Amino acid sequence: MERALLIGRYQPFHNGHLKAVQEIVGEGFSVVIAVGSAQLSHTLENPFTAGERHLMIANALEDEGIQNYEIIPIIDINRYAIWVAHVESLVPPIKVVFSNNPLTTRLFSEKKYEVRAQQLYDRDIYSGTVVRQRIISGENWQELVPDAVVKVIDDIDGVKRITELVE
Amino acid sequence: MERALLIGRYQPFHNGHLKAVQEIVGEGFSVVIAVGSAQLSHTLENPFTAGERHLMIANALEDEGIQNYEIIPIIDINRYAIWVAHVESLVPPIKVVFSNNPLTTRLFSEKKYEVRAQQLYDRDIYSGTVVRQRIISGENWQELVPDAVVKVIDDIDGVKRITELVE
Amino acid sequence: MERALLIGRYQPFHNGHLKAVQEIVGEGFSVVIAVGSAQLSHTLENPFTAGERHLMIANALEDEGIQNYEIIPIIDINRYAIWVAHVESLVPPIKVVFSNNPLTTRLFSEKKYEVRAQQLYDRDIYSGTVVRQRIISGENWQELVPDAVVKVIDDIDGVKRITELVE
Amino acid sequence: MERALLIGRYQPFHNGHLKAVQEIVGEGFSVVIAVGSAQLSHTLENPFTAGERHLMIANALEDEGIQNYEIIPIIDINRYAIWVAHVESLVPPIKVVFSNNPLTTRLFSEKKYEVRAQQLYDRDIYSGTVVRQRIISGENWQELVPDAVVKVIDDIDGVKRITELVE
Amino acid sequence: MERALLIGRYQPFHNGHLKAVQEIVGEGFSVVIAVGSAQLSHTLENPFTAGERHLMIANALEDEGIQNYEIIPIIDINRYAIWVAHVESLVPPIKVVFSNNPLTTRLFSEKKYEVRAQQLYDRDIYSGTVVRQRIISGENWQELVPDAVVKVIDDIDGVKRITELVE
Amino acid sequence: MERALLIGRYQPFHNGHLKAVQEIVGEGFSVVIAVGSAQLSHTLENPFTAGERHLMIANALEDEGIQNYEIIPIIDINRYAIWVAHVESLVPPIKVVFSNNPLTTRLFSEKKYEVRAQQLYDRDIYSGTVVRQRIISGENWQELVPDAVVKVIDDIDGVKRITELVE
Repeated sequence: MERALLIGRYQPFHNGHLKAVQEIVGEGFSVVIAVGSAQLSHTLENPFTAGERHLMIANALEDEGIQNYEIIPIIDINRYAIWVAHVESLVPPIKVVFSNNPLTTRLFSEKKYEVRAQQLYDRDIYSGTVVRQRIISGENWQELVPDAVVKVIDDIDGVKRITELVE
Repeated sequence: MERALLIGRYQPFHNGHLKAVQEIVGEGFSVVIAVGSAQLSHTLENPFTAGERHLMIANALEDEGIQNYEIIPIIDINRYAIWVAHVESLVPPIKVVFSNNPLTTRLFSEKKYEVRAQQLYDRDIYSGTVVRQRIISGENWQELVPDAVVKVIDDIDGVKRITELVE
Repeated sequence: MERALLIGRYQPFHNGHLKAVQEIVGEGFSVVIAVGSAQLSHTLENPFTAGERHLMIANALEDEGIQNYEIIPIIDINRYAIWVAHVESLVPPIKVVFSNNPLTTRLFSEKKYEVRAQQLYDRDIYSGTVVRQRIISGENWQELVPDAVVKVIDDIDGVKRITELVE
Repeated sequence: MERALLIGRYQPFHNGHLKAVQEIVGEGFSVVIAVGSAQLSHTLENPFTAGERHLMIANALEDEGIQNYEIIPIIDINRYAIWVAHVESLVPPIKVVFSNNPLTTRLFSEKKYEVRAQQLYDRDIYSGTVVRQRIISGENWQELVPDAVVKVIDDIDGVKRITELVE
Repeated sequence: MERALLIGRYQPFHNGHLKAVQEIVGEGFSVVIAVGSAQLSHTLENPFTAGERHLMIANALEDEGIQNYEIIPIIDINRYAIWVAHVESLVPPIKVVFSNNPLTTRLFSEKKYEVRAQQLYDRDIYSGTVVRQRIISGENWQELVPDAVVKVIDDIDGVKRITELVE
Repeated sequence: MERALLIGRYQPFHNGHLKAVQEIVGEGFSVVIAVGSAQLSHTLENPFTAGERHLMIANALEDEGIQNYEIIPIIDINRYAIWVAHVESLVPPIKVVFSNNPLTTRLFSEKKYEVRAQQLYDRDIYSGTVVRQRIISGENWQELVPDAVVKVIDDIDGVKRITELVE
């Protein structure tokens, strides 16, 4: 089974991410979920550690019965000219990249990868930014993420972590 | 299901590693296989990239029908006092560490983890060093590793990579 | 004598910092003054080197007759999940952390440290930002810092350094 | 022949840079062209790799018949207190620094270098920022850079790279 | 009071180090004790963290009634050409360097510092290597270090740490 | 004119290096001389800074009347899987690589570069190791390097630097 690469920060993993994974798996790929900026955590933009994000994704996909996936943390190297080589050295061989990010698209295209646009699902709400904003403002963020993600965030007391960082 | 951590460099993944995984899974754990020194490759001590090692492990475990595992690359930070925190930030929560390495044992013990000795299987032959030496000397290394690993090494022309590095 | 940790950037060390040190020493602690972002200097936000900040603090405390302190530079590692471990590896054992910074508070609390709020003294003027702004605008910044700090900044021609950086 | 140092990012190398080089060479120096932030590329602020910038400069100077120059990439170290020592370790001995950048001027002056102001040529148009903005807006950017730079940017499909990054 | 720099790794701080500090203080200097390779710990060559070494030194000097000292951790940068600038950015201004290490002597001499030979005291026994070897072999290492150092090593269970690393 | 890449550490640049450059230029290439391990200096294996090595090479080639060359320092990244991408980002486009180093050959071959064996000239004497050993032992090292290199080493007092490091 060929592998497709899906890169994101997953801060946190939300329903839009889940649908993207389902779509890619539905096309017959095993999906390599690269957790970008793996070194970041405890900021408003990047509240969760790579390990916490790993757990969110693994539990959400288990609930959905999805098995053809791998989760791999990718620490930033802050040098885009060698970033694709960095990713290549950490993941098993991939056939295609799914992305809507222009930089990711550009970098993998320059290295002759096939990059496919990822279908977007109500991007105005299924977005990490929106989820984090709702957590801060006390709105319903739970409806935007899989139940397993709600549970992980609760277990690590994640709402308090984020709201404390707001001051 | 609780997770157990198994740390190694897997240069390459051999039958001793496979038996350790089987043992840990047999005890009812999901095993987190941390691929250490993930940044290293193309040397005699560390010939394979983290992505190549990931592929070896995933394919070998698939052949064995093992599913309760995760493979996570760990890039060295060369500071042992903060290495456990580094690993913790990249992996989902773990219950126990399996290791025979004295430094790993020491570092996780200082952080109050339960560290269990990993049972060893003919360590005089099931060792990465022995496998690499046999590759260099042209002896039968294939019998020391799972078939899936033989196939990955063949696919990436790994024997030639190692022998060329010897000069 | 138990040690308390006080973390700041001290750009520069001002009267608010001095009062915090006096308060902590007054409670019977020896105070470990961690000089954060030690690698930064020569910017508007961080004009002074760690060595220059060390000198400011040491001279100011000598003038006050305070002896139960240690000054330790802490270079950023830009990974909050392992930052407490980084600090722990560089300082002697501490009993309590004094901080009003939400991130510092959060990170040390997650690692089970007792974090106490630092009493604030006219924070609208005793702030590094205000001191630096007054230096730029030519206002009286000297009244906000200990005399020893004025002397160090004069000796290193610090006002000129900052105003040149403004352009 | 004594060497003069000219530091810039050259994103891209434009006619203002060219005139600065001509002026310095005209004063009898061999010019060491330090390509700053050499590790950056593929962003709107820093679209070109150090190698691409090297090629732009080398070809433009060849067209002008200038031979007394050297091009040396300088990767950022993000610590200004040791940045001059970093540059010194990478370039041959220099006699004088040409710069209009206040930070560069300050840092080299603190280390007792002679720093001369670089003559500016219509800085409101001969600026990397203006060139990049014109590329984005589809205006005439070609008139601001040497012909050799136009050719390099065309060869690497640089306009498309930049416009794709805008989204 | 002028400052003198004394650089070492202090793995651990032994009686030879103590005598060197006493000598330097006796010459009228305040001594800046730079703890080199501050990032290293938990190896046979470098068993103790910078924080642990700080504690050893502070307690030993307190027992001796020495007050004119500062302890500053120095993380390696592995680039000797800029190492002096690195140290300079972290410590207050120093007048003279005491060293018997040829590399340290060379590097500070190239930067025009006065470097004085440090008097040696039975270097065949007062050496970190000898202390660590005695700890491993179970010989009397306690006689080679100040009592305060014995106590710190006991408190952190340091003998066990070292002997476990030997395997 | 197409460019060929020649990678070395040039500690120091010797007659064997010079002949390799002459051969490559004689084949009609412009030669990109990559100065590897550019961050290292002041050790017995790597005594000279990248800037000093640059000067040696530039002066030696000027004496020979060679003009079609560029000298580019390459700082190690210690990750061979991404090293070719690192080099590519720093140098102008190259057509062919000249090397006798098995690792360099392997890494560039894996990335589909043409790698040609570099002709060797009395490698038992024209070697950096031999030059450095002769400097240490006081033998005639001058006959192994271009006159310009002798002069640079004299100017920077390089023999004393090396012999001091031996102790």
